[in-house]
Amino acid sequence: MIEIREATEHDFEAIWPIFHEVAKAGETYAYSPDTNKEQAFSIWMSAPNYTYVLVENGEVMGTYYLKTNQAGPGQHVCNCGYMVSSLARGKGFATIMCEHSQQKAVEFGYKAMQYNFVAASNDLAVKLWLKLGFSVVGTLPKAFNHPRLGYVDALVMYKWLAE
Amino acid sequence: MIEIREATEHDFEAIWPIFHEVAKAGETYAYSPDTNKEQAFSIWMSAPNYTYVLVENGEVMGTYYLKTNQAGPGQHVCNCGYMVSSLARGKGFATIMCEHSQQKAVEFGYKAMQYNFVAASNDLAVKLWLKLGFSVVGTLPKAFNHPRLGYVDALVMYKWLAE
Repeated sequence: MIEIREATEHDFEAIWPIFHEVAKAGETYAYSPDTNKEQAFSIWMSAPNYTYVLVENGEVMGTYYLKTNQAGPGQHVCNCGYMVSSLARGKGFATIMCEHSQQKAVEFGYKAMQYNFVAASNDLAVKLWLKLGFSVVGTLPKAFNHPRLGYVDALVMYKWLAE
Repeated sequence: MIEIREATEHDFEAIWPIFHEVAKAGETYAYSPDTNKEQAFSIWMSAPNYTYVLVENGEVMGTYYLKTNQAGPGQHVCNCGYMVSSLARGKGFATIMCEHSQQKAVEFGYKAMQYNFVAASNDLAVKLWLKLGFSVVGTLPKAFNHPRLGYVDALVMYKWLAE
């Protein structure tokens, strides 16, 4: 059984190993590989407007945050980040969370969703976001320093959600 | 006589009216028009890695910040924001600050500079950044809610600074 619900502070004990694994790899997110638990809490739980967990049979297998991307004249656009445990890849959890986040974003009154910094080398993610209705609206030349590939482009992806 | 130097806490007394005027207009920056002085201090002085003032004959007429745009794999790219007092427009101060910031960025070891959110309606700024070597690398559809024009595009602009 799979459910998505708002994360509690307690859930962070299960989120942290997922975050740490993803940040340490340095291949997909613009977080320092050395981000410690306290910093991760601030990044993933405190700074965003909302944090959710995807729970499969009682275990946290994925998580995402949703936050306002820019203040003032940009506050109708939100930003999300998603992480799935390496124990649960290939099960469609990113798709489930992305669709959930789009519904929530509309509920919260956002008109669009933006991903600011998708490593162009992250083929799976790029394909998935395209499939889920996002477009590549920007290409930041050599903006992502990949641990094996060196400087690769980062993509800005965007989806208008409102009517 | 014009000089650019690092801002002190005391300088914020002169920065605040400039910030407030720009934020309140809501036409160029993604700050809430209601941003108060304490929030502005945090945004302009605390959060960035560096804040500078442009001083003309002893008076602060412009200011800019420089910060790392993304952590970890994105930390070689910086971001800047510039503001000029309405009393000092048309004197080339934005150009002077932009060129200064590019020199500083190289000194600090950054390899590129990115502007995340330039209102497409801000013709003067767009033309200026193009002239100073930046390229439009992204267009965020209707991402900027302009007080008179409604939803306009926001541009992502970028310049590689390293060899």
